[in-house]
Amino acid sequence: MKEHDHLLDQHDPERRDFQIERLILFTDAVFAIAITLLIIEIKVPEGHHKNTHQHIVDLLHMIPKFIGFIMSFFVIAIYWRSHHRIFGFVTSFTEKLIWMNMLFLFTVVLMPFSSAYFSEYQMETIPYVFYNANVVIMALVNYRIISYVFNPANKIVTHMPSARFLHLFKMRAIAIPAFFFCCLSIALIFGAPFPIIYFLIWPMMYVLNRYNKRKFEAKPVVANEATAE
Amino acid sequence: MKEHDHLLDQHDPERRDFQIERLILFTDAVFAIAITLLIIEIKVPEGHHKNTHQHIVDLLHMIPKFIGFIMSFFVIAIYWRSHHRIFGFVTSFTEKLIWMNMLFLFTVVLMPFSSAYFSEYQMETIPYVFYNANVVIMALVNYRIISYVFNPANKIVTHMPSARFLHLFKMRAIAIPAFFFCCLSIALIFGAPFPIIYFLIWPMMYVLNRYNKRKFEAKPVVANEATAE
Amino acid sequence: MKEHDHLLDQHDPERRDFQIERLILFTDAVFAIAITLLIIEIKVPEGHHKNTHQHIVDLLHMIPKFIGFIMSFFVIAIYWRSHHRIFGFVTSFTEKLIWMNMLFLFTVVLMPFSSAYFSEYQMETIPYVFYNANVVIMALVNYRIISYVFNPANKIVTHMPSARFLHLFKMRAIAIPAFFFCCLSIALIFGAPFPIIYFLIWPMMYVLNRYNKRKFEAKPVVANEATAE
Amino acid sequence: MKEHDHLLDQHDPERRDFQIERLILFTDAVFAIAITLLIIEIKVPEGHHKNTHQHIVDLLHMIPKFIGFIMSFFVIAIYWRSHHRIFGFVTSFTEKLIWMNMLFLFTVVLMPFSSAYFSEYQMETIPYVFYNANVVIMALVNYRIISYVFNPANKIVTHMPSARFLHLFKMRAIAIPAFFFCCLSIALIFGAPFPIIYFLIWPMMYVLNRYNKRKFEAKPVVANEATAE
Repeated sequence: MKEHDHLLDQHDPERRDFQIERLILFTDAVFAIAITLLIIEIKVPEGHHKNTHQHIVDLLHMIPKFIGFIMSFFVIAIYWRSHHRIFGFVTSFTEKLIWMNMLFLFTVVLMPFSSAYFSEYQMETIPYVFYNANVVIMALVNYRIISYVFNPANKIVTHMPSARFLHLFKMRAIAIPAFFFCCLSIALIFGAPFPIIYFLIWPMMYVLNRYNKRKFEAKPVVANEATAE
Repeated sequence: MKEHDHLLDQHDPERRDFQIERLILFTDAVFAIAITLLIIEIKVPEGHHKNTHQHIVDLLHMIPKFIGFIMSFFVIAIYWRSHHRIFGFVTSFTEKLIWMNMLFLFTVVLMPFSSAYFSEYQMETIPYVFYNANVVIMALVNYRIISYVFNPANKIVTHMPSARFLHLFKMRAIAIPAFFFCCLSIALIFGAPFPIIYFLIWPMMYVLNRYNKRKFEAKPVVANEATAE
Repeated sequence: MKEHDHLLDQHDPERRDFQIERLILFTDAVFAIAITLLIIEIKVPEGHHKNTHQHIVDLLHMIPKFIGFIMSFFVIAIYWRSHHRIFGFVTSFTEKLIWMNMLFLFTVVLMPFSSAYFSEYQMETIPYVFYNANVVIMALVNYRIISYVFNPANKIVTHMPSARFLHLFKMRAIAIPAFFFCCLSIALIFGAPFPIIYFLIWPMMYVLNRYNKRKFEAKPVVANEATAE
Repeated sequence: MKEHDHLLDQHDPERRDFQIERLILFTDAVFAIAITLLIIEIKVPEGHHKNTHQHIVDLLHMIPKFIGFIMSFFVIAIYWRSHHRIFGFVTSFTEKLIWMNMLFLFTVVLMPFSSAYFSEYQMETIPYVFYNANVVIMALVNYRIISYVFNPANKIVTHMPSARFLHLFKMRAIAIPAFFFCCLSIALIFGAPFPIIYFLIWPMMYVLNRYNKRKFEAKPVVANEATAE
C-alpha cells in the first residue's frame, strides 16, 4: 500500500502548510466538541416545587457525576496539550500520520461515552475498567504518534527538540498509560475499583520530573541542546 | 514544576504564531459549542392535535426558559468578546497561561448545565446560587487571565495597551463578578432569588463608564497613551 | 457608550487581521454546530422486530421531519453564504459590528429549536408563525449588517464592491424576509399555515434577478463598475 | 443564473485565499461535529446495583452499536481525507462549488441519523438500505466534486496533479459508491442485509490498487507526470 499512499499524497506545493493546519484544526474541533459534550451527560434533576433542602440533596447525589466530568475534562485537556506540543514541530505529513491521528481522535470521541458510563456506575468494576482502558488506548496511540513524529527517518519534523525534551516528553507519555493500566489491572484482580488511586498521579509525576532533572543535570549539556534551549 | 514546564514549552520557532492561534481557535470552538448547546436544553413541547390557544399557552410556559437562554447566550458572548480582546494582544504563551485558559473553558463548558438548571427552577434559591456561582468563577478566572497577560513581567504581550484601557478593562472585569456575588449573597441571606436584580447591570456599567471617563479626563494624558490611542 | 467602546477596541496593531479572522471563524463554528444539531431532532423510530412494511411506514411518518430538516439546512446554508460574501470585504471591525454579529448568531442558534418545533407540528399555525418569525428576524439582522458594512462612513470595507453587486445583494436580502413575513401574515390572517407557498421562492428570485439584470443592462456601466468586475 | 452568480461572487481581491480557507474550515467544523455526534447515539445502559456479569452482558448487547459507530466513524474520516485531498489543490472557487460542497455536507450531517438507525436495527433491510443509500449519495457527490474541481475548464486548480493521481483518485471514488450500491441492491433483492459483505472492501481496494499500478508501470511515464511526482 506504501506506494499508492505516497501517490495520493500530492497537493498544490504552495498549500503544504495549510494542509497541515487543516489537519490540526479538524483535530481541535473534534477535541473541542468531545470536551463540551461531557456536560450533556449531566442532566438537570427532575421534579418541581422542591425546597432548598431537596435541592441540596440533589446536588450531593450528583457529586460522582461532577467528579467524573472534571476528571474527563482534564484528561482530554492534557491530551489536547500533548497534541498541541507535538504538532508545534510538525512541518510535513504522511498518509500514516493522518490515520494515526484519526485513531487518536477515535479514542477522544469515545471519551464522552466512557466518562458517562464510569460516572453512572462509579463504584463498579466493568465501567471503571472500560474507562481506564479508553484512557490507556488513547495514551498509547499518543505515545505512538510521538515516536513516529520525532523519528528523523520519517522527515515529519525539521527543527528537532532537544534530547532532554524528547526524553521527558516520552517518559511522561508512557507513565500515564502505565499508571491507568495498573488501576485497571488492580480492579480486575480485586474485583473492585479504587478511584482513590488517581490521587497518586501527582506524586508519580513529581518523582518523574525530579528524576529527569537530576539525570540531565548530572551529565554535561551536549551541543545541540545548548542551542535549542 | 516551573523548570520542566519551561522545558516542554519548546516548539518549532517558526510555528510560534500558529501555536497561539491554535490555542485561540480551540478556545473559540469550545465557546461556539457551549453557546449553541444552550438551545438543546429547550425541548419542543409534547402532545399533538393542539389548537392555537394551547400552542400559545405552551409558549408562555416556556418564557422562563427563553429568558434563561437569552441571558446565558449574552453572558457567554460577553466573555467571548473579553477573551477576543485579551488575546488581541497576546504574542507569546506559557504553560501557565494554557492551564488558566483551560480552567476558564471549564467554567464555560459548565454554563449549558447551570443555565438549564437555573431555567428549570427559576424562582428557587439553590439553582439560582449555582448559576451565579458559575458566572462569578468564570469572571474571576477571566480577571486572573487579564492580570497575568498584561503583567509585563510575564512577557506575554509586546504591544501594551494604554493605561486607561487597562484600567477600564479591569474595573469592568471585576465589577461583573462582584455584582453576581452580591446577587448570590442576597439569595442566600433572604433564602430567595431576585432575578429582577439583573436589570441593575446596565445602570452599574453606565456609572462605571462615566466615572472612568471623568477620572481620565481630569488628569492630563500621559505620553504612551497619546501614542496608543 | 460610543467613547468607551472605541477605547476598549484596542489590540496589537499587527493582529488586526487575525482579530477579524477570529470573529469570522467563531461565527463559522456556531453556524456549523447549528446546522449539524438540526439532525439530532430527528429521532430513530422506536420498537423492535418490525417487518419491512412497518419500517417503510415509519419512514413515511418521518417525511414532514425530513422536509423541515432539509429546509432549515438550506436556510442556514444560505445565510452562511451571505455572511461569507459580506465578510469577504470586511477589513476592519467595530464594537457595534461584533454585537450585530452576535445578535445574528442568536437567531442562528435558535434555528434548531424553531425547526424542530415547526417539524413536530407541521400543519399548525403557531409553530409555523414562530419558524417564519425566526427566519424574518435572522434576515432583517442580516440586512442590517449588510447596510452597516457597506456604508462607507463606517470604514469597515476598503475595497467596495460594484454598485450593481450591492443593489442586487440588498434586494435579495430584503426579498427573503419580506417573503417569509407574507407567509407569516397569511398564516395569522387565515388561521392556518400554507407551507406549499415556499415553492414560490424560486420564481420570485428568478423575477428579481431578471429585473436586476435588465435594469443594469439598460443604463451604461459607470466607471468604477468596469474596474470592479 | 450563471451571470448573477458570477456577479455576487465578488470579494476583496486580497481576501481570496481567506475566502477559500473559510469554506474549508466551515466544512471541517461540520465534519468534526458529525463525527463526534455519532457517540451520543450510544446511550449508557440503565439500571443500578448490577453485578459484574450483568455489566458484561450489557456491553455484549451494545456490540452492534459499537460496530455501527466504528464503521460510520471511518466512513466519515475517509470522506474528510478525500475532501482534504481535493481542496489541497483548490485555489479558486465558484458559486457552484460552494453549493456542491453544501450538498456534500448535507449527506455528512445525515450520517449520525443513518448510523443510529442502522445500528438500532442491524439485521433489518430498510435501515440497512437507508444507511447504504446515504453513503452512496455522499460518495456520488464527492465524485462529482472531484470531476468539477479537476476539470481545467472550471479554473479551480492552478497546479494540476499527475494524470496517474487523478486516475487512481477517481477510480477509488467511484468504486466505493458502486460497492455500497451493490450491498443495497442485494439487500433489496434478497430482502435481507448482509453486513458481512463490508469486509470485501479491503480486497476490492487491493485489486484496484494493483491494477492501477500495473497499468501505469506498463506505459512509459509522460512528461508532466515526471515533473509532478
